[in-house]
Amino acid sequence: MLYQAAMDLNVKVRILTGDANSAAAQVCPDYVVDDWNNETALRRFATGCEVVTFDHELVDTRVLRSVEAGRCTLRPAASSMQKVLDKASQRRLVRELHMPTPDYLLASDRDALQAAVLRFGYPAVMKATRGGYDGRGVHVLSGDEDLNAWSDLPSEWLVEPLLPIERELAVQVVRGVDGELRTYPVVETYQSGGICRSVVAPAIVPPELADTVRRFAEAIAESCGIVGVLAVEFFVVGGELMVNELAPRVHNTAHYTVEACAVSQFENHVRAVLGWPLGPTDLVVPAAVMTNVIAGPDPLRPLSEIRPFPPVRVHLYGKQTRAGRKVGHVTACGDDAARLRQTADRVAAMLVGESEAVPSGAPSDRSQGVRA
Amino acid sequence: MLYQAAMDLNVKVRILTGDANSAAAQVCPDYVVDDWNNETALRRFATGCEVVTFDHELVDTRVLRSVEAGRCTLRPAASSMQKVLDKASQRRLVRELHMPTPDYLLASDRDALQAAVLRFGYPAVMKATRGGYDGRGVHVLSGDEDLNAWSDLPSEWLVEPLLPIERELAVQVVRGVDGELRTYPVVETYQSGGICRSVVAPAIVPPELADTVRRFAEAIAESCGIVGVLAVEFFVVGGELMVNELAPRVHNTAHYTVEACAVSQFENHVRAVLGWPLGPTDLVVPAAVMTNVIAGPDPLRPLSEIRPFPPVRVHLYGKQTRAGRKVGHVTACGDDAARLRQTADRVAAMLVGESEAVPSGAPSDRSQGVRA
Repeated sequence: MLYQAAMDLNVKVRILTGDANSAAAQVCPDYVVDDWNNETALRRFATGCEVVTFDHELVDTRVLRSVEAGRCTLRPAASSMQKVLDKASQRRLVRELHMPTPDYLLASDRDALQAAVLRFGYPAVMKATRGGYDGRGVHVLSGDEDLNAWSDLPSEWLVEPLLPIERELAVQVVRGVDGELRTYPVVETYQSGGICRSVVAPAIVPPELADTVRRFAEAIAESCGIVGVLAVEFFVVGGELMVNELAPRVHNTAHYTVEACAVSQFENHVRAVLGWPLGPTDLVVPAAVMTNVIAGPDPLRPLSEIRPFPPVRVHLYGKQTRAGRKVGHVTACGDDAARLRQTADRVAAMLVGESEAVPSGAPSDRSQGVRA
Repeated sequence: MLYQAAMDLNVKVRILTGDANSAAAQVCPDYVVDDWNNETALRRFATGCEVVTFDHELVDTRVLRSVEAGRCTLRPAASSMQKVLDKASQRRLVRELHMPTPDYLLASDRDALQAAVLRFGYPAVMKATRGGYDGRGVHVLSGDEDLNAWSDLPSEWLVEPLLPIERELAVQVVRGVDGELRTYPVVETYQSGGICRSVVAPAIVPPELADTVRRFAEAIAESCGIVGVLAVEFFVVGGELMVNELAPRVHNTAHYTVEACAVSQFENHVRAVLGWPLGPTDLVVPAAVMTNVIAGPDPLRPLSEIRPFPPVRVHLYGKQTRAGRKVGHVTACGDDAARLRQTADRVAAMLVGESEAVPSGAPSDRSQGVRA
């Protein structure tokens, strides 16, 4: 999707991918298959580029710093990535900024895990500080038997109480090289099984709450000196806002901006990392809903079988389907968010072979990234 | 743009182009450089494809028929292309359907040209029946001296009186393999120097006029059995509608559908030629304006210099700039078409290095495809 945006701007793109069959390599003529966490490989790649950016955060900041020292331009810079790359750094940053965040402890051995559980009680949630994604790396500890299963912790975990989450909100900020800031509308996200199912834009929230969400996200973007898109996810617990997670990249919660906003997150990310002026982030439609196409056990149903075809835009990524993997998304734009959500959910469900749409993310499904 | 739409649907695209530097070959990994009007080359290309479609009409129907006979699937079919390929066939088709069209005569020698001018008087317009585009192949005959310049006519020309055109309208129909029809909103087009400058959607016209426009276009699409997008352009002269030109392909007058309609002309063309159900063609925004970026004498100004960047989407085609060539377009969506047009025109003008926007297509500029 970054490539599609760059194409419209006549910006040349070269992709560094670990897999020649990746979605991006399938559609972009100019790609290199190599290990992006190998310093030599990344430096070789970056030397041929005016600027290098990222579409995921599974990077090694030591490698990034070393490549930067070799006069390659990375945006966001290694120093920004480091502040938001793992869940522990994110929480530290948010606390330094005096913003509310769930109570947590870090644990990298069994004693620390036990101490954390003693403090929070059951049920508690443990999240890998690195590499977690779409519910992977997240576990609920419901009792001593769960705790005992983790006698030998493989790496660092963030432990927090399982919270009675009322709503989940998200917002994306774009920051330019010169510090220019643009913020997309606040959206509501619906999760289930630890995966974002749907995003509704704009979120129907009191104006003061939306202001706080935007203000927090902008302060975080400033504080880590990000260049490009930064996504910030929030919980609402007991009517109170808490910062949950950060992502220094274009984000699933803003895919709807392709159809619904003056300038999309993808175009604005390209603009930002090239040092161009940013584009407006306003909605150009009253409302939009994005629903992820999350693969089930079977291959995707052909698009041609969806008849009559409803007023949605479908984006299929050309990824191998694997149960639980996001392999596409559907966006519907219009007036009535509830109806748009029904339509988008229905198309997404049909694509994965469900005859009836499963309602996306009922309140009971909300969780701290916990998989069913 | 067809490739971008196909990408979202995970449809694999192979391009046949005469030039490895063409806009499409720059962005699509899978292309073949060959002569599309060479039967062997086209058959070789088509044999590797499930279906072949066209993004221009500079094709030879004899070649198409022969390739079809070799069991390759062309959509539109050669029989459809033949009915709408040149201006003479188009006029014949429209007259057979009893629709109003400008009075005309065909001329392929000097006597016929003189006879036509005698009938219509000066000023008259002569248009090459094939290969004309963006004002090329169109000449105004203002007096005998213009007539004498054409002592030896190179091919077939359509001659008609220069009409006092009040407005120009356009509409695009998509027709599926099974005859399913979907029609985009009627738009108003603003021409100058024989080139379309801007398109405003929807056209502000009486409902009966819009109905007639749609009905005519749908009847033409049915009559030539088109599969894919058919664009139909109209004149309004003395309050009366006249069919002007047809194009059996995705069309510049519907580029705005990428941002403004539920499903774009590009996606619907892909859907149609693949035999899929078509998508809805309704606007999802109140209004949209598309303004072409028409190259001037200088290279395009960098997008990064447009600051602040207004709420528009820019599409640059990566074509070599050559004065008078369409090298991109700008789309603005919102409530107020007049303001949208100002914004889109201004960005397009800035890109070609004009400091002030030139108003696109004042009424006096309207003409039968006549270049300034």
